Amino acid sequence: MTQSLLEKLRLEYQPRLPKVLENIETLRPIFGKCKECVVPLEALSNLSKKDPFISFTNQEPKEHRPLRIGVVLSGGQAAGGHNVIAGLYDAQKKLNPDSELFGFLNGPKGITDNKYREITQELLAAYRNLGGFDLIGSGRTKIETPEQFKAAEATVRALRLDGLVIIGGDDSNTNAALLAEYFLVQNCPTAVVGVPKTIDGDLTNSDIEISFGFDSAVKTYSEIIGNIARDALSAKKYYYFIKLMGRSASHIALECAMQTQPNMTLIGEEIALKKDTLTQIVEGISDMICTRSKNGKDYGVILIPEGIIEFIPEINQLIQELNDLLAQGVKDVKNKLTQASEHCFSMLSPEFQSQLLFDRDPHGNVQVSKIETERLLIDLVKKALANRNDYKGKFSAQPIFCGYEGRSCLPSNFDAQYCYALGHVAALLVDLQATGFISCVQNLAAPVEEWQIGGRNLVTMISMEKRQGKIKPVIQKSLVNLKSKQFFAFQKDRQKWAEQDLYRYPGPIQFFGPPELTEAITFTIQLASS
Amino acid sequence: MTQSLLEKLRLEYQPRLPKVLENIETLRPIFGKCKECVVPLEALSNLSKKDPFISFTNQEPKEHRPLRIGVVLSGGQAAGGHNVIAGLYDAQKKLNPDSELFGFLNGPKGITDNKYREITQELLAAYRNLGGFDLIGSGRTKIETPEQFKAAEATVRALRLDGLVIIGGDDSNTNAALLAEYFLVQNCPTAVVGVPKTIDGDLTNSDIEISFGFDSAVKTYSEIIGNIARDALSAKKYYYFIKLMGRSASHIALECAMQTQPNMTLIGEEIALKKDTLTQIVEGISDMICTRSKNGKDYGVILIPEGIIEFIPEINQLIQELNDLLAQGVKDVKNKLTQASEHCFSMLSPEFQSQLLFDRDPHGNVQVSKIETERLLIDLVKKALANRNDYKGKFSAQPIFCGYEGRSCLPSNFDAQYCYALGHVAALLVDLQATGFISCVQNLAAPVEEWQIGGRNLVTMISMEKRQGKIKPVIQKSLVNLKSKQFFAFQKDRQKWAEQDLYRYPGPIQFFGPPELTEAITFTIQLASS
Repeated sequence: MTQSLLEKLRLEYQPRLPKVLENIETLRPIFGKCKECVVPLEALSNLSKKDPFISFTNQEPKEHRPLRIGVVLSGGQAAGGHNVIAGLYDAQKKLNPDSELFGFLNGPKGITDNKYREITQELLAAYRNLGGFDLIGSGRTKIETPEQFKAAEATVRALRLDGLVIIGGDDSNTNAALLAEYFLVQNCPTAVVGVPKTIDGDLTNSDIEISFGFDSAVKTYSEIIGNIARDALSAKKYYYFIKLMGRSASHIALECAMQTQPNMTLIGEEIALKKDTLTQIVEGISDMICTRSKNGKDYGVILIPEGIIEFIPEINQLIQELNDLLAQGVKDVKNKLTQASEHCFSMLSPEFQSQLLFDRDPHGNVQVSKIETERLLIDLVKKALANRNDYKGKFSAQPIFCGYEGRSCLPSNFDAQYCYALGHVAALLVDLQATGFISCVQNLAAPVEEWQIGGRNLVTMISMEKRQGKIKPVIQKSLVNLKSKQFFAFQKDRQKWAEQDLYRYPGPIQFFGPPELTEAITFTIQLASS
Repeated sequence: MTQSLLEKLRLEYQPRLPKVLENIETLRPIFGKCKECVVPLEALSNLSKKDPFISFTNQEPKEHRPLRIGVVLSGGQAAGGHNVIAGLYDAQKKLNPDSELFGFLNGPKGITDNKYREITQELLAAYRNLGGFDLIGSGRTKIETPEQFKAAEATVRALRLDGLVIIGGDDSNTNAALLAEYFLVQNCPTAVVGVPKTIDGDLTNSDIEISFGFDSAVKTYSEIIGNIARDALSAKKYYYFIKLMGRSASHIALECAMQTQPNMTLIGEEIALKKDTLTQIVEGISDMICTRSKNGKDYGVILIPEGIIEFIPEINQLIQELNDLLAQGVKDVKNKLTQASEHCFSMLSPEFQSQLLFDRDPHGNVQVSKIETERLLIDLVKKALANRNDYKGKFSAQPIFCGYEGRSCLPSNFDAQYCYALGHVAALLVDLQATGFISCVQNLAAPVEEWQIGGRNLVTMISMEKRQGKIKPVIQKSLVNLKSKQFFAFQKDRQKWAEQDLYRYPGPIQFFGPPELTEAITFTIQLASS
């Protein structure tokens, strides 16, 4: 690995700590309620007996035993993962210098396979404040089967771990709760502690103001979107259809919209509420393009959340029918579709039709996630415009996908500091043997020094739901709240943004310079905690 | 327009000036030779009579007349365009405060249509050091026909312009020379002066070390590539096939390779030299993937220059045949192809086949530039790997295109300062009535203060070539020199980069912080002027 100058400078960066964490050895727990009610779950009966929330208060310093902690990165990257590990390391060493940290390799299968590397000061020195998950890798394996649970138990027992810290999204934290419950049943003393990670911003609740990585991802995407908007306005030639990573929820798209003020932003949750059809969405975009064209503007920027496709019922039905027909080995599928799906299919260009028919996953299913919505919409809008008598403009469009580059970017100062604090709190929770709790750092719109800390019982975030025919415990993804201040702010301005060119260009993330620049936080956090 | 905080801070940035430009009113020309020989051109006989190069020396201050200058942005965006205009404005005001600047709107058609806006201090105050060309817009119209030449003359006469500054790439500067020659013939007193603009980095010679915009573009792309490499290394799941904007030449790909050290970088010029076939390219990539897979690495990063397609003879032949057949109205084109082209066509997936057959330009031609090489290569590599007995890995790939976001980004400090100096020199050339000259700023690897300035006669850069059946004057695009220090440096390390994971993560462009960070220049400049 060859470090760039910026990386070298970032290694020297010292994240500020919340005041409450400054004397970590003086902290004592206060067991209490969380802001939402608790629903005890039979499937997690041991965890359900625990308090819903732990806060902390400073008292006299006390001695702490050395902690042996294992840590794992689960799922997709999010900027700041290395700083969670650094925070964990520094905190457990402050509690007791004989503490040890083990990083499980390449995600949860590192736990079941007992593959790890010891995390040392020297090793960490090359990763502090840097992006990616490459210190120990990540992976998407789920610990699900009885064998996997047993293997995980064997590993944590063999390593005599006081704690296992799982850094992950909704699925991984559900998994953390199940593992915590299992260890309790097995009298295995390892405390399982979660940390809220995902760029998607959909792992939030009354105690988790944001998941880490969201801030850096939206800033990276907003840099790109801003540049592209400037390109649109300079060349006055293209419509840019920009798809944004972010899974089902439209948090990233909404925040990027606030940052860059594009001409249109589709919000999946709004489409679902209005029950908009694909045709309605396409006509909505075409209306905007026609209006702009009449004002001499044949260019613009449209943001499309990755998850939008799940919110369009016709597409879902079409895919379902295609899957069934293909599974039955039907050759001439086009003629076997229902009328509605046949209509939907006929709207698509040959390219998309063949993508749906030929591009299938190992089970033979159409791959929804591979459908390139930005291209699909361009295709349909082109056709819709061709059918309009009142449109005289020139429609030329470019599809763009903002994705992987936002997951592994250098963490913004916000994420670097937030993660460092989350790691500290995770160490505290392990020290308390608070198994089944997730690390919380709150009051994030305030200066770092004023941030508050706590731990929330994962049980209070979990509900039982039917998934793929089975009742399963899940942490529901938080979707965009259409009654939030943020959505109102967006709604208030979007008509103006559609008609005029009010693009905003945030530029690249800055790590040096005035604090109001380097410490800037997203509107999501500002509005969530205001 | 809503300015972001970073933009507001950039507006206050003061580009440093080369020492020689500090007292611009004291500069006197020295007419002399340029480093390459001069070939007088009959088509540009008046320009051919002029000296090939003008350098400058400081003497006593002298009075200057007020200058009336028109400026136009021609072609695709490149970061720093606004600073050329700012430099031009500030320099002509320093020469004489009564000078005036007019910006022609939306490219060269602003000249022929006589559409402009006056550039004032107040107007410029909102664009200094910012990206994009939105102050006056840009466009791709060429001034070609006798009517267009006449219209341009009428405009510059009506505005009584002392100078017309054309900020553009190879085509636009060829056009500038033709217009300069025409004005000389017509006894029109307006001096036409060029400024070397293009992110592609292909408008260079012994006097033009780099075109502006290249530095900012490669830094923006390298940020993204670095992030994606970190993602590859963290998830260990995907091969990223990243196509980079940059037209025919592979300068951007080569520089980005030096910045980010990916596993493989295709260089069009090398492929052309070796006469590699598409199959050979695909096998080369597959070899690398096999070797890495044997070492447990089923992930990686491959850079693909946009222009690569032009360097693959088979693809060119196939496209030619398809065009001819489609023009003849042949329905069943597949069966009418030559054997070689039929083989090439059969290598492609149905998706690409239909793209070639259905996605045509207004003249009915296959659109070469729209062929998504990154996807084509993924498709072919997938097939090639499936046919290998020795490959046991899992090949999963993601296509990525780094394009428009690199053209309209905030200019790096280098581009901000380079452009500001180029604008100053353009004003000096107008003041000298040095028509047909292009603004040169040299010694760019040295600190700004030591940069040198001059003007080069465009005639010395032009040769007569057959293009679309006609002999035309052209400025040849400079391609990657396979015998340059830079290419040797790349060649020396690429095997190591292929096998190991030596990715480098430059991170986002920084505008604040230590000078070695904010003033960093590309390897291209470092090696070109060392």
